[in-house]
Amino acid sequence: MKSHDTIRAVQWQDGSLKLLDQRYLPAQEIYLELDDVQSVAKAISDMVVRGAPAIGITAAYGVVIAARGRLRQAPDRWRKAIEADLELLAASRPTAVNLFWALKRMREAIDCAGDSPLEDLLRAAERIHADDLEANHRMGEAGAALIQTGSGVLTHCNTGSLATGGYGTALGVIRSAFIAGKLDQVYADETRPWLQGARLTAWELMRDNIPVTLLADGAAASLMQQGKVQWVIVGADRITANGDVANKIGTYSLAVNARYHSKKYGVKFMVVAPTSTVDMELACGIDIPIEHRDPAEVLMLNGQRVSPAGAQAWNPAFDVTPAELVDVIVTERGIVESPTTNRLAAMMKNPS
Amino acid sequence: MKSHDTIRAVQWQDGSLKLLDQRYLPAQEIYLELDDVQSVAKAISDMVVRGAPAIGITAAYGVVIAARGRLRQAPDRWRKAIEADLELLAASRPTAVNLFWALKRMREAIDCAGDSPLEDLLRAAERIHADDLEANHRMGEAGAALIQTGSGVLTHCNTGSLATGGYGTALGVIRSAFIAGKLDQVYADETRPWLQGARLTAWELMRDNIPVTLLADGAAASLMQQGKVQWVIVGADRITANGDVANKIGTYSLAVNARYHSKKYGVKFMVVAPTSTVDMELACGIDIPIEHRDPAEVLMLNGQRVSPAGAQAWNPAFDVTPAELVDVIVTERGIVESPTTNRLAAMMKNPS
Repeated sequence: MKSHDTIRAVQWQDGSLKLLDQRYLPAQEIYLELDDVQSVAKAISDMVVRGAPAIGITAAYGVVIAARGRLRQAPDRWRKAIEADLELLAASRPTAVNLFWALKRMREAIDCAGDSPLEDLLRAAERIHADDLEANHRMGEAGAALIQTGSGVLTHCNTGSLATGGYGTALGVIRSAFIAGKLDQVYADETRPWLQGARLTAWELMRDNIPVTLLADGAAASLMQQGKVQWVIVGADRITANGDVANKIGTYSLAVNARYHSKKYGVKFMVVAPTSTVDMELACGIDIPIEHRDPAEVLMLNGQRVSPAGAQAWNPAFDVTPAELVDVIVTERGIVESPTTNRLAAMMKNPS
Repeated sequence: MKSHDTIRAVQWQDGSLKLLDQRYLPAQEIYLELDDVQSVAKAISDMVVRGAPAIGITAAYGVVIAARGRLRQAPDRWRKAIEADLELLAASRPTAVNLFWALKRMREAIDCAGDSPLEDLLRAAERIHADDLEANHRMGEAGAALIQTGSGVLTHCNTGSLATGGYGTALGVIRSAFIAGKLDQVYADETRPWLQGARLTAWELMRDNIPVTLLADGAAASLMQQGKVQWVIVGADRITANGDVANKIGTYSLAVNARYHSKKYGVKFMVVAPTSTVDMELACGIDIPIEHRDPAEVLMLNGQRVSPAGAQAWNPAFDVTPAELVDVIVTERGIVESPTTNRLAAMMKNPS
């Protein structure tokens, strides 16, 4: 691995799932080893692991762990018994479609598993992981090719090695563009309320020797107004058939601001996600289930109250950016400019 | 005072300036008593007191305190000696023009002071304070009159009793509209990095029995997209002759988003500020000096690091919203719709 790509947050090691606990970064690097499916589902719900592709990969390994348990308990009817585990994993978070996509692929692997089902399932999960990593490298190249030398880029949330099988989606594009010497500045929103930008993206980029400047989410518009940003580059938790994009809360505001600053300052908005994030079964973004998380994420900071006792908060974890605000979607099967249902469908038919 | 208006953050009591220390809200209510001009300047720099009108009022009382010191030291040449104190106060924060406006008025009072200069200066400072309070009530009525019953409103930063002589500018409009029974919901951005919304606005509104729902700054666009906001109502730190508005970082993003959601969802953008905030000597917003504060405000939270060691941050305290995004400016001398240089100049000629 190059010095700009050193982190793997989801690992399968010696028969266990090893997760870098993202709740404690950057202060502490703690790896959890998980051996039962309940712990895997809880790790997803509690955001030990987060990021749409990483959630999918984690769930895939979770199915391997579930199968091991069920095969021990009831080798004759493990395929029936594991249904409850698949449901448990599916209920861990609602918005990122990669979770359901990975579980669907693992269900197919269950159906096709032969005499060594555990080996077959592990192979399927490792394939999902390896495919994601490869997809990220492809997207990195394709996205970086769109960026002119000397550009400033702004990203939101964490879409890097911590959020994927490795390398990253939006952050993979930023990695590739940085390695190609194209980037003048990398800016990252701190990304309230969970501070994925300040805690995770800054940690990941500093670890991988890519300089980054943090800013409060509300400052992004001012950064664009000063001509410091040519591309806003974000990931996605679900892209619907028409190109609408669910992503971390705050993304939609960036898209509106990018469009407002497009004529005068040339700001463009890029969404980077593997096709496992594309949900062709939903026509448009209004149908995406949006997770609302505990108001305490807004009302507290690092375990301390910052708001008065009894205050209310509205805390959606994601928002939906309409396709009309997206300049380009980058996937491992190709790029889609000014996405529409037809253009997205055509891209999905490309070979992967 | 009504139960919806109970807080006074700046008080002159028994010959001292008493300030509610806003750095410790909502956890602790600590009042500082200041008896020397150095402490007053430091209280402004360190944000013991903040909010453009409150800074102006504090500086005015600071001049009284300075005069007392200079009169003791050198009764014959106090007018010359106090110059250094005026400069010290003027250097305490750069963006809010109310500070310079108040110092200019106090300088006039110094020039005109008679045989009892301290009494004359105190009367001038109390007049600035009382005028601000009265202006806020007038703006409250005028702004509330623009709001339809059943509206949702969104505000940013703190523009209430804590930021003014009392009652508030934008929050004064929200108080008046709430008292008039017009508001369905009051939303407040938490307002990173200093969390004026979460810490101060929520505290102030809960104290005054006005229900409020906090949100992360990045969530405001999504709130508008869901049709929950009819008016974004903010204060100002400086309004230039053409109607450009410097205000707390994050305001400009709200203005861009309000305009984007204006056609479909009827979102409008209101700026509420006394004429002491209007700087007719600057033609447009690009000339406003924008304070950049310590990157630690972004990199730390409540004294704890949230970003990795060595991370950089960009931390402007204010941004500039161009007049073209402002639907209405409300002052104590009248309202200006779709502000232009001519319209603003005409309003400034109204009697106060």
